[in-house]
Amino acid sequence: MRLSRYFLPILKETPKEAEIVSHRLMLRAGMMRQQAAGIYAWLPLGFKVLQKVEQIVREEQDRSGAIELLMPTIQAADLWRESGRYDAYGKEMLRITDRHEREMLFGPTNEEMITDIFRTSVRSYRDLPLNLYHIQWKFRDEVRPRFGVMRGREFLMKDAYSFDLDQAGARVAYNKMFVAYLRTFERLGLKAIPMRADTGPIGGDLSHEFIILASTGESAVFCDRALLDTPVPGEDLDFDADLTPIVESFTTKYAATEEMHDEAAFKALPEDRQVSARGIEVGHIFYFGTKYSDAMGAKVAGPDGVERPVHMGSYGVGVSRLLGAIIEASHDDAGIIWPDSVAPFGVGILNLKPGDAAVDAACESAYATLAAAGRDPLYDDTDQRPGAKFATADLIGLPWQIVVGPKGLAEGVVELKRRATGEKQSVSLESALARVTEKS
Amino acid sequence: MRLSRYFLPILKETPKEAEIVSHRLMLRAGMMRQQAAGIYAWLPLGFKVLQKVEQIVREEQDRSGAIELLMPTIQAADLWRESGRYDAYGKEMLRITDRHEREMLFGPTNEEMITDIFRTSVRSYRDLPLNLYHIQWKFRDEVRPRFGVMRGREFLMKDAYSFDLDQAGARVAYNKMFVAYLRTFERLGLKAIPMRADTGPIGGDLSHEFIILASTGESAVFCDRALLDTPVPGEDLDFDADLTPIVESFTTKYAATEEMHDEAAFKALPEDRQVSARGIEVGHIFYFGTKYSDAMGAKVAGPDGVERPVHMGSYGVGVSRLLGAIIEASHDDAGIIWPDSVAPFGVGILNLKPGDAAVDAACESAYATLAAAGRDPLYDDTDQRPGAKFATADLIGLPWQIVVGPKGLAEGVVELKRRATGEKQSVSLESALARVTEKS
Repeated sequence: MRLSRYFLPILKETPKEAEIVSHRLMLRAGMMRQQAAGIYAWLPLGFKVLQKVEQIVREEQDRSGAIELLMPTIQAADLWRESGRYDAYGKEMLRITDRHEREMLFGPTNEEMITDIFRTSVRSYRDLPLNLYHIQWKFRDEVRPRFGVMRGREFLMKDAYSFDLDQAGARVAYNKMFVAYLRTFERLGLKAIPMRADTGPIGGDLSHEFIILASTGESAVFCDRALLDTPVPGEDLDFDADLTPIVESFTTKYAATEEMHDEAAFKALPEDRQVSARGIEVGHIFYFGTKYSDAMGAKVAGPDGVERPVHMGSYGVGVSRLLGAIIEASHDDAGIIWPDSVAPFGVGILNLKPGDAAVDAACESAYATLAAAGRDPLYDDTDQRPGAKFATADLIGLPWQIVVGPKGLAEGVVELKRRATGEKQSVSLESALARVTEKS
Repeated sequence: MRLSRYFLPILKETPKEAEIVSHRLMLRAGMMRQQAAGIYAWLPLGFKVLQKVEQIVREEQDRSGAIELLMPTIQAADLWRESGRYDAYGKEMLRITDRHEREMLFGPTNEEMITDIFRTSVRSYRDLPLNLYHIQWKFRDEVRPRFGVMRGREFLMKDAYSFDLDQAGARVAYNKMFVAYLRTFERLGLKAIPMRADTGPIGGDLSHEFIILASTGESAVFCDRALLDTPVPGEDLDFDADLTPIVESFTTKYAATEEMHDEAAFKALPEDRQVSARGIEVGHIFYFGTKYSDAMGAKVAGPDGVERPVHMGSYGVGVSRLLGAIIEASHDDAGIIWPDSVAPFGVGILNLKPGDAAVDAACESAYATLAAAGRDPLYDDTDQRPGAKFATADLIGLPWQIVVGPKGLAEGVVELKRRATGEKQSVSLESALARVTEKS
């Protein structure tokens, strides 16, 4: 993409309403723009990152055997009356009346609807196990939306729902999601720690939150430092194998949110392993048994022909929130430091003197080479001053930057900068291109 | 994908409420399920096709130079008061009051919001031309939703908005979208005819609808048969070139919807070129000048330093509706005939005797080969009877089907069926695989 043809409305001033760094940086970098309280338009740069995060979440759901579908945003109130949650949900639910005076709502989550889809389609244990997920916009009418995408009202969530004949089957499904989440967050460059959590209003009796440690986190968390080094399985993992040992390599170590904290157990750890920090929740998994299948009549016949309510779990990832979490975990004074896996562009090319024939030619050649190599370059061909170009490239977090100016070029070199480390090298253009197109 | 692990709830009976063939087939094939009047859940098979259609729309928007972003579904009523459309829009707009008694709405379209984004970010003609698009769920509270995705309430639309300094620039933007639409529909296997159209409540003075001829179409249309053979540009087209000759190769031939029909001009055509038919609208493009920029103060400074309201156009494609349109245009008594470009799976493998070691081995080998070749096979490994497997493969429209049974295999052959033509060949498994993995 040539920056002169792109839409990247960088803000020069720091927006006053933004209290935390991810919110500030997302606004300043032209990633998003608030349209109403807690409701954002995703500008091209932000949307590109959102799509990359979404795609990693999708790939790991697919790998684990979950199947994607897409439920609508608007739901009928009647479904929620069946589960008893229509009245219980309170003011966070955005309630809507349509032109025929039917009561509707903007879905804050989808347990009821997926249970409805399941009960009309599945009758036998032979169709189990089943795990259905979607990635869809949700709405929760927060009383005080803030912190940008961290606590918005309209937000993108991946929610999966598992269906099994019994608790043992549901536990297998739970373990698959547990491991899929470990892999997802690792690919996003995040160290997410699964913590035993309170199940809250959603109900059930087995639940973990996946939490990123960050000083701006919303809640206090406690964990064993050994969790930070516990290995996450690679992509050769067989999800049909018994995943219990992997899950237990995490769950046997101490980790808890404030609600579930056991001070005595924590203090029993060696002192240098007691991590007390703040955390950001990026995922939450639940097993809730037959809570919805009982209420809504979702039954399957077992091998014995007897019908029984299906055992369910639900598994959420805050996809839009993850962008904020990644930035909270990875930034510096100059701006965002994207992990390569979700950077909006792979490489920046900074032309320090547009109109200079040699510089233009070198930049065009680099642009063509990087585009052909699938590195999705952003070519700053604008007439901004060099200082502004450096600032923009760092602010939006381009992981590699190739800086091309007339003086260097006369000496046969360009500057290659690695955003994460700040390391700069003067090398030939060919070396720079070879370096950034290497398989990493 | 192994069908035994997939979620494909085929309906045996034809749903009574479905009046047109695309609605019937999408329900029967387990592509979607109605959750409320005009509101559908996209089941895995339907969602896969929806994603493929969306991706083709996206690629052609990108190719034309439009830039993707994503605006939220929920909008503030105040924006629509600025344009004067809040009261004018009527009951089709789903109006919502949030917990703080603020008036909101579920966006039926996005002229106001994109104009708002533009006016806060762009000040100079140097940032033009600009064309911003998104692919987002919209809601129109139709008084009588029907025909499945053809007239739903919650639907997926691609809407692009162009910004130019003057009418001449806007015309260039209009032509780019005109040609991008020709290419989009051609890639979807559709013959879409651009027809001069009434601009309707959206306003403006230049507008074309893109219409598919189909006997179930909602409106009468009239055109010159020569349009059916007018060539659409290939992917080597340079969108920065003057596209006027391409646009005029279509617009100089007679084509009009009922509202714009000129019987005298139509009858002046040679009789064998007078096509009078029914049509389905799949796209609509508008130039509407400064209607929104005047009302909302979206101005840019020209080269002379003088500020003037920006010239705009908007360009819609009904993404979810396209699935219905494709099926209306391409089906037979047995089910859907997907064009290869949007088929949910590339190839079906039908195992006629699961448990037979030779048949299982041949199917597994075919499955591995096709998956590795990126042909996204669906392997019917279920214990259904052969007749049911044939019916399902045809109903859901698998473009190629490899049928593997013990008798054929003993003779060294499988059956290779092409869905579109019904042609069947007995060939070796190797030949079948070679045929379906050929570059087409």
